[in-house]
Amino acid sequence: MTAGSSAPIGVFDSGIGGLTVAHAIIQHLPNERIIYFGDTARVPYGPKSPDTVRRYSREIAGFLVAQGVKTIVVACNTATAHALPTLQEEWEVPVIGVVEPGARAAVNATRSGHVGVIGTAGTIKSGAYERALRALRPSLRVTARACPLFVPLVEEGWVDHDVTRMVAREYLEPLREAEVDALVLGCTHYPLLKTLLAEVLGDDVRLIDSAEETARETSRILRERGLEAPASAAPVGGHRFFASDDPLQFLQLGQRFLGDVIEGVQVQTLG
Amino acid sequence: MTAGSSAPIGVFDSGIGGLTVAHAIIQHLPNERIIYFGDTARVPYGPKSPDTVRRYSREIAGFLVAQGVKTIVVACNTATAHALPTLQEEWEVPVIGVVEPGARAAVNATRSGHVGVIGTAGTIKSGAYERALRALRPSLRVTARACPLFVPLVEEGWVDHDVTRMVAREYLEPLREAEVDALVLGCTHYPLLKTLLAEVLGDDVRLIDSAEETARETSRILRERGLEAPASAAPVGGHRFFASDDPLQFLQLGQRFLGDVIEGVQVQTLG
Repeated sequence: MTAGSSAPIGVFDSGIGGLTVAHAIIQHLPNERIIYFGDTARVPYGPKSPDTVRRYSREIAGFLVAQGVKTIVVACNTATAHALPTLQEEWEVPVIGVVEPGARAAVNATRSGHVGVIGTAGTIKSGAYERALRALRPSLRVTARACPLFVPLVEEGWVDHDVTRMVAREYLEPLREAEVDALVLGCTHYPLLKTLLAEVLGDDVRLIDSAEETARETSRILRERGLEAPASAAPVGGHRFFASDDPLQFLQLGQRFLGDVIEGVQVQTLG
Repeated sequence: MTAGSSAPIGVFDSGIGGLTVAHAIIQHLPNERIIYFGDTARVPYGPKSPDTVRRYSREIAGFLVAQGVKTIVVACNTATAHALPTLQEEWEVPVIGVVEPGARAAVNATRSGHVGVIGTAGTIKSGAYERALRALRPSLRVTARACPLFVPLVEEGWVDHDVTRMVAREYLEPLREAEVDALVLGCTHYPLLKTLLAEVLGDDVRLIDSAEETARETSRILRERGLEAPASAAPVGGHRFFASDDPLQFLQLGQRFLGDVIEGVQVQTLG
């Protein structure tokens, strides 16, 4: 079950949001090949129970390991919040989540020591970010808020729409009142709302996108374990994308995130 | 595989929306017992492909038949649109969908002969309502519009919120321009937006809620087949509710639809 340095990196998400993480990994680690799995037949994970999200995540991790990946990046905040420790116990390959890298970036960014976190209902309810933030700096003040409408708004393509602005004003009001100076975008869809969120919150609030940090963490872990792809080896066969539902829809929506890096998508039924 | 008149009626939906149909059946047929299945672990069906929705629907129908139901009501517009003929072929028990009853009510309600239909992306894309409406009256003019944000807005509880009003104005604009005088609420969540939709569209547009019509159709089919529960037999053991994800969440959201008819919810993992 051990995979060598030339093996691909497995990345998964409940759907297409994790492509923001895949994108950052491709930018940071140009020699690496990625196998991406989007669970589009069962998306979203955000409103679902920890048990169900854990079950789905275990199935996907099993699929990726069977594909021979050398590491797994859980590119979904809800899956990281509910399933990371389970996956780390179950598999020999390193399993990297998005929560800790995001928390670390927020701790580095805040000056006031007051950090905000937004995410799906499941991520926020899990308290995973609070725990990760306080583990890094116990004195930190954290204000968290679930924003369940942001994912459907992004998927509707309304990333610069008055409705989304109005929703953002309502959701972010407690964070504005609390005067946080760094806000973790705790869902992989949210970076697509960066411009609008910055407009609502003002320039004084740093927006933390976990994707970048997670790519850096992935790079660090591969280096530590001697699993970096050799610089000479150009990606053979390119990246591969799997979805559990209609590949065409994945392709269309996915290109909004990744551009034409996605050449084709295969269907893999799970569950 | 044949069930007698004292057997329960199986009702299923992608989640909790179908409870509006269950509610209407309970009102119309007080002697009947219901077994309801909400596929909350894989909700929503609206944006998913016909194949996936068909696969899920077949699994649930199999579960209901194994529980000994005498008929199956597909209380989900997307599942009806994609899976009804398949289920009707596969099972001996009558399988009733929500599309045809809704279409019939709209044909009866319209004076101008111009009908609107709103639903999920999957339902609208399938063209199921257009086909059902034109089969009943070929001269009918039909204007259809997908409204993907309505379900998340209802589930957020924003049924009387300015954001929802703004979304409704945008979604319904083509229907107002087309001057439809009857609008099919082609998704079981939408009846919860009735007041707001009436406000946006004005009093001249009749809003068609398939739930009522579907209950009437169920009553008619049970009578035709001699499957009505005997009037003397008070429901034994009451109704039963199954969800594929967290029962507590189903209970909380479900009570918004059905009140305290829901006493408890059992988990049934599928897929």
